[in-house]
Order: sequence, then structure tokens, then C-alpha cells
Amino acid sequence: MAGTSPTVGNSFVRQLPTPSPYSFSVTSSGQGSRLQTERWSLLLRFSALVLCFVSAVTLTTRSGKRAGSLSSFTGSPELVYCLIASIVTFVYSVLQLFKGVCDISYGAVLIPDRISDYLSFVLDQMLAYLLISSSSLGVQAIQQTDNTPSLRRAAIVSVTMSFTAFLVMAACTLLSGYKLCKRIIW
Amino acid sequence: MAGTSPTVGNSFVRQLPTPSPYSFSVTSSGQGSRLQTERWSLLLRFSALVLCFVSAVTLTTRSGKRAGSLSSFTGSPELVYCLIASIVTFVYSVLQLFKGVCDISYGAVLIPDRISDYLSFVLDQMLAYLLISSSSLGVQAIQQTDNTPSLRRAAIVSVTMSFTAFLVMAACTLLSGYKLCKRIIW
Repeated sequence: MAGTSPTVGNSFVRQLPTPSPYSFSVTSSGQGSRLQTERWSLLLRFSALVLCFVSAVTLTTRSGKRAGSLSSFTGSPELVYCLIASIVTFVYSVLQLFKGVCDISYGAVLIPDRISDYLSFVLDQMLAYLLISSSSLGVQAIQQTDNTPSLRRAAIVSVTMSFTAFLVMAACTLLSGYKLCKRIIW
Repeated sequence: MAGTSPTVGNSFVRQLPTPSPYSFSVTSSGQGSRLQTERWSLLLRFSALVLCFVSAVTLTTRSGKRAGSLSSFTGSPELVYCLIASIVTFVYSVLQLFKGVCDISYGAVLIPDRISDYLSFVLDQMLAYLLISSSSLGVQAIQQTDNTPSLRRAAIVSVTMSFTAFLVMAACTLLSGYKLCKRIIW
């Protein structure tokens, strides 16, 4: 027993990779920064999801309490556009969150990393422009809802949330641009 | 005379730098790509300048032919916002063009390169968002100008130009982001 234990120990040591400080530090720091970027990205996308959800729900629920208000909400194309933009961003955020959690848990199993980075960058840009466009029209629509106070309040909350979601999506754009740039150059 | 000419030739040769193929190729390709990016940037900024100029001039001149039209133009806050966005982008494009030409001719004498890249990136983003916002409101304003055909035509041309300027500015944003990323990473 005393003779076999060193042999087992040696074979165990031989199976371990040679520790190279250079390769270890580079890989771990690269993976660490990548993971940190992913976490920030997930946090931002979760915020966008919540904001768009609140924006859409406020507009549909509060203004739907009375029949007259409901008809005036659907009668305003700007608020409908605002609602559609919120819903599209909400769905996109859900998909991105799902993909992000899958990536962290199992690796890039859904879409290859390169395609995902390009796609995220383009879609983030487009959704940021969509949100600022819809928010601008929403602000204009608020001025036309003077005669229906409940719809006016709902529109103000909804447009504020939509504008905040735009700011979050603009930050997402910067982050996905940074990720894409790192992927292209490194 | 026959004895001095080789000496002169040798001193002339000694003054030349040692040709290193590696350093030469890297520097020239880097400078070449930098110069090409600058030229693309100048072309895009010139396009933005022309588009914003046409947008602003169309709105002010055509709708100013009649007193009634002029009053209705200034009475529509959306079109005034569209005009202000066009003028701001026009002034910004003029400044960027002036800086770009100075940079190509004399080097970075006006603003240091690093500050200029950061500033361009931030301002390009903000102006792209401003232009899409104003164009969206402009489209909405066109629908309200049914009773004044001349103003309606002017508004349609102006908003189309403004939207095209937004597309150009979005391309500028990508280019300035690429330049900034290259500067940060390299």
C-alpha cells in the first residue's frame, strides 16, 4: 500500500495540464470581462423588458377602464404606434434574455456568437430608433388628449417609460457595438 | 573632384533612415486606412450638410411664398422642430467638414484626435436620434397640412430630406464608432 500510493499520485499529477501563468491569466481575464459584459447586457435588457412591459400595460389597462377612453386610445395612431414599439421591444428583450441565460448556462448553443453579435448590434440600433421615434410621437399625442384625463395620465406614464426604455436601449447599442468591435478586431 | 564625390554620396546615404519593411508596411497601411476612413467620413458629412440645407431651405422658402402659408408653417411646432433639427445638423456638419479638411491638410491642429473622436461619436449619436425624432413628428405634421397644398409639398420634401439625413448620420455614427473603437483598442 505504501508503494502504490506514490504511483497513483504521480499519474494524477501527470493528467493535470502544465500551469502556464501567461495563458491562464489571459484566458481568465478575457473570459471574466466577457462574462461581465454579458451580465451588464442582461441587466440592461431586463430593465428594457420591465420598462416596455409597464409602458404597454399602462396604456392598455388604464385607458381601457372606460369605453370612451378605450375608443380614444385606439383612435390615436401615435399611441398605437407607441404601444406597438413597446411590445416589439418587449418581445425582443425576452428573446435576448432567454438567449443570454442559455449562453451563460450552456454556451452558444442557439446561435453562433458571431452571427448573434452582428444581429444584436443591428436590431439594438433599429429598436433604439424605433423607441425614440414612437416616444416623440407619443409626446405629441399627449397634447391631443386634453379632454380625457385618464387617457392623458396613462399616455404620460407610458411615454415616459418608453423614453426611459429608449435610453436603456441606447446603452445596449453601445454595449453590443463594443462586443462586436472586440470580436472583429480580436 | 573625383575623390570628393564618393564622400558626398556616402554622407547623403547615411542621412537616410534605415528602410525597415515591417515598420514601413504597418505605418503606411495604418495611415492609408485612416485616411480612407477620413475621406468616407467627409463624404458622408458633406451629404448630410447638403440634405439638411435642402430640408431647411425647402421648408422656409416654399412655404414662405404666401403670407398664409408662412403663418401656418410657424404655427406648426412639429415643422419648426424639424427645421431646428436640420439647422443644428447643418451647422454641425459644416464644423466637422472644416475640421476634417484641416486635419487632412495640416494634421490635428484644432482639437486633439482622442477628444475629437469621443466628441464626434457622442454628437453623431445625439444628432441621429434628433433627426429621427424630428422626422417622425414631421410625418405627423404633414397629415395636418391638408388645407395648404404648398406647405404640404414643402413639408413632404423637407421631411424626406430630413429622414435621408438621418440615414446618413446613422452611417456617420457607425463610422465614428469604428474610429473610436480602433483608437481605444489599438
